[in-house]
Amino acid sequence: MNAPTTTAQQLPDLLPGLDWIADPLRVGRLSQDFAWFSPVLKRDLAGKRGDVAVRPRTEDEIRQVVAACAKAQIPLTVRGSGTGNYGQSTPLHGGVILDLSGYNGFGWVRGGVGRAQAGIRLSDFDAQAKPLGQELRWLPSTYRSATLGGLFGGGFGGAGSINHGPLAAPGNVLAVRAMTVEPEPQVIELRGPEAMLLHHTYGTNGIVLELEVALTPAVAWTECIVSFTEFDAALEFADRFGAAPGLEKKEVCFLAAPIPAYFTSLAEHLPAGCHAVMLLVAPHSEDGMRDMAARYGGTVSYRKTADEVEKSHKSLLEYTWNHTTLHALKVDKTLTYIQSGFNPATRLEQVKALEKALGGEVMMHLEFLRTKEGAFNCSGLQLIRYSTEERLNQIMQIYRDHGVQINNPHVYIVEDGKQNNLDPAVVSTKQRFDPQGLLNPGKLRSWVPPVAKAA
Amino acid sequence: MNAPTTTAQQLPDLLPGLDWIADPLRVGRLSQDFAWFSPVLKRDLAGKRGDVAVRPRTEDEIRQVVAACAKAQIPLTVRGSGTGNYGQSTPLHGGVILDLSGYNGFGWVRGGVGRAQAGIRLSDFDAQAKPLGQELRWLPSTYRSATLGGLFGGGFGGAGSINHGPLAAPGNVLAVRAMTVEPEPQVIELRGPEAMLLHHTYGTNGIVLELEVALTPAVAWTECIVSFTEFDAALEFADRFGAAPGLEKKEVCFLAAPIPAYFTSLAEHLPAGCHAVMLLVAPHSEDGMRDMAARYGGTVSYRKTADEVEKSHKSLLEYTWNHTTLHALKVDKTLTYIQSGFNPATRLEQVKALEKALGGEVMMHLEFLRTKEGAFNCSGLQLIRYSTEERLNQIMQIYRDHGVQINNPHVYIVEDGKQNNLDPAVVSTKQRFDPQGLLNPGKLRSWVPPVAKAA
Repeated sequence: MNAPTTTAQQLPDLLPGLDWIADPLRVGRLSQDFAWFSPVLKRDLAGKRGDVAVRPRTEDEIRQVVAACAKAQIPLTVRGSGTGNYGQSTPLHGGVILDLSGYNGFGWVRGGVGRAQAGIRLSDFDAQAKPLGQELRWLPSTYRSATLGGLFGGGFGGAGSINHGPLAAPGNVLAVRAMTVEPEPQVIELRGPEAMLLHHTYGTNGIVLELEVALTPAVAWTECIVSFTEFDAALEFADRFGAAPGLEKKEVCFLAAPIPAYFTSLAEHLPAGCHAVMLLVAPHSEDGMRDMAARYGGTVSYRKTADEVEKSHKSLLEYTWNHTTLHALKVDKTLTYIQSGFNPATRLEQVKALEKALGGEVMMHLEFLRTKEGAFNCSGLQLIRYSTEERLNQIMQIYRDHGVQINNPHVYIVEDGKQNNLDPAVVSTKQRFDPQGLLNPGKLRSWVPPVAKAA
Repeated sequence: MNAPTTTAQQLPDLLPGLDWIADPLRVGRLSQDFAWFSPVLKRDLAGKRGDVAVRPRTEDEIRQVVAACAKAQIPLTVRGSGTGNYGQSTPLHGGVILDLSGYNGFGWVRGGVGRAQAGIRLSDFDAQAKPLGQELRWLPSTYRSATLGGLFGGGFGGAGSINHGPLAAPGNVLAVRAMTVEPEPQVIELRGPEAMLLHHTYGTNGIVLELEVALTPAVAWTECIVSFTEFDAALEFADRFGAAPGLEKKEVCFLAAPIPAYFTSLAEHLPAGCHAVMLLVAPHSEDGMRDMAARYGGTVSYRKTADEVEKSHKSLLEYTWNHTTLHALKVDKTLTYIQSGFNPATRLEQVKALEKALGGEVMMHLEFLRTKEGAFNCSGLQLIRYSTEERLNQIMQIYRDHGVQINNPHVYIVEDGKQNNLDPAVVSTKQRFDPQGLLNPGKLRSWVPPVAKAA
């Protein structure tokens, strides 16, 4: 192979028809996401950035960029809207940022299935799908700006995972159309389990162009806050309502005191010192939810119908999942968070024991969901009063010692988050789609790349 | 109170405008259901019958019958299509059979909610609801003839309970309109948990006129049989597929060998000696189901799309739940069955242990479902090679000794099925709606009735 002669900065001249971004400030912004939630990542990723960004609008434009990078061995980092939390799209070795947010065409909805280009915003997808009677199975709290491809490449699930589990559950993502990074890029359709080999690998494993996903019938969700004076009562209501098979819901979020106090814009609906359960419930299940809430001593202190939500442009979803952390950080910059997965069989005992062990330093935020296998469970996005990295690691170890899985959000390498080994099939997919190791280099440890050209 | 002077036989003359049935053969048929599945009930209920039956078409006609019975203290047993299995509608003390199958108007579907008169057949309800985009949340295998009121009064759930649990789960049944049995009958609407006080009490607790139920979006279900050579593989596939949150289904039924061999009309689709999993899957989840089946060594040996099912007038649902027992009894009259509820946490271990302990004498038939609280589980409708009542009771005790709940289908009193005490609120509802104890007397032990007039 000849030594490469082209640098990333030269690409705009080489491919002048494309929408390039070379302004250092803008490239800097496009190199970042919400990794600053973590003081550890903020330090570790400081200064990491691409050399230039490009925003293709067609598959052919993507192909031109990819071919040029492959020929010149320039690193290529795919990006959606940058709503991730682990620096998924922050280039460690410079190169080109391939911003797919302009490659955002809505494809179709047929029966319970939808298809779109990777850069479509989740909110735009739903705006198109809902009039057709369907909606996405999962909405992260960033749904207004987050892209479908970004959710697939770096996300987990969100609201709706209480019904359909994470994206990784079989039957959720049906197919991807992906491009290889080669001088002559190939476009390949992967269906079923094969498609999932590109999931949650931070765009290291191929360039996802289109996604075909299973949908769920659209519902005009009512949004409620149920507030409680007792931790245990709030927790048990959230768990019981979440699991109730006759009560249709899309979201159940448990926020122990003092977390609700960080939501200054909802203050009038959150009695001082309350524990809050935020939920999305189907209109025909609201009475049943209220009966259950009353039995646990809860008060419905906020309620908006789907129409009211739409008119107000304010959804409770934007207070759940990692938006909880965002709102808290707005008030107190010293906070950070951890991510945890409880044991479905003993979830409530674990939560209560950890609240007892760490209450005050760790604030309990739980999202109820189904696991990939379908077990009802809760996962934590606990807020932490941050002192030192050592203490943060201690807290995570205390969780593990209680039998709770930690999905560490303070690391940026795919394998480090869950502390487990990667499926060898993922590694061979990497080899197939990115034989030179140009995609987001440094994020996948299990595949040893050839020397990639830094900028 | 004056001594009653009217007998049940005199009512047709008293109310000549109604559709009375006095022919002894027809009244005999209307006194029965499928309790003959149980040799014990067949013996215990032999000769039990009403004196006369009536088939009202309007609420006013129902009111006339009820008022007359209340004035004359004549027992009154409400009946749908007689598809029960415990003699729910077999009068123990004669009197009038109130056949509500003619009171069958479809009301409406609004959003995810539907309403109809109690006598509507489940299949007729769905035929009206499906063009409106909705369907019932539960279909017993008797759905072609069974009525909505009968399902509520004497049933549990069925296909669909794998998603929404039994009828008894909060949020499934939203309201009932019911009539008291008094000389001046009152009509009362009960909503939410109050409505459920009339559920599964065999029509002893008030006359249910209308039901309002939560629905689920209609799906064009594909029906499949997956056949296996290994018991454990078939069981684990059924369990895993049933629980998978991304794969949409309405029914998962596990039939261990030799049960499939009883299905002579499906013989070509059931390899000799196979274990079979019968399932209803959404079209967009079929590929995922097939991937999973292949991983467990299963073969899809039967497949019909929703269109093909409709054209053939043959649904696999009519081989599941207690239709399994019916088909087996057609081949071997000496069989009977039991009903069991496993422990969600140890379900597969329990099934395997009991198959080992009783295989040969007890044939494993499992229906996968969610419990009232939402736990994924299986419940058994095991076929038994019947020898004696004593041995049948022994088998049920062996199940209990393994930690499995037995819902005894060989008893006809409400409380005896689950061996537990009735909610006191049910007893006070009985007092409110039937102060003289005329409704289906002898079926509710917890309420001590005044002397009811036998024919």
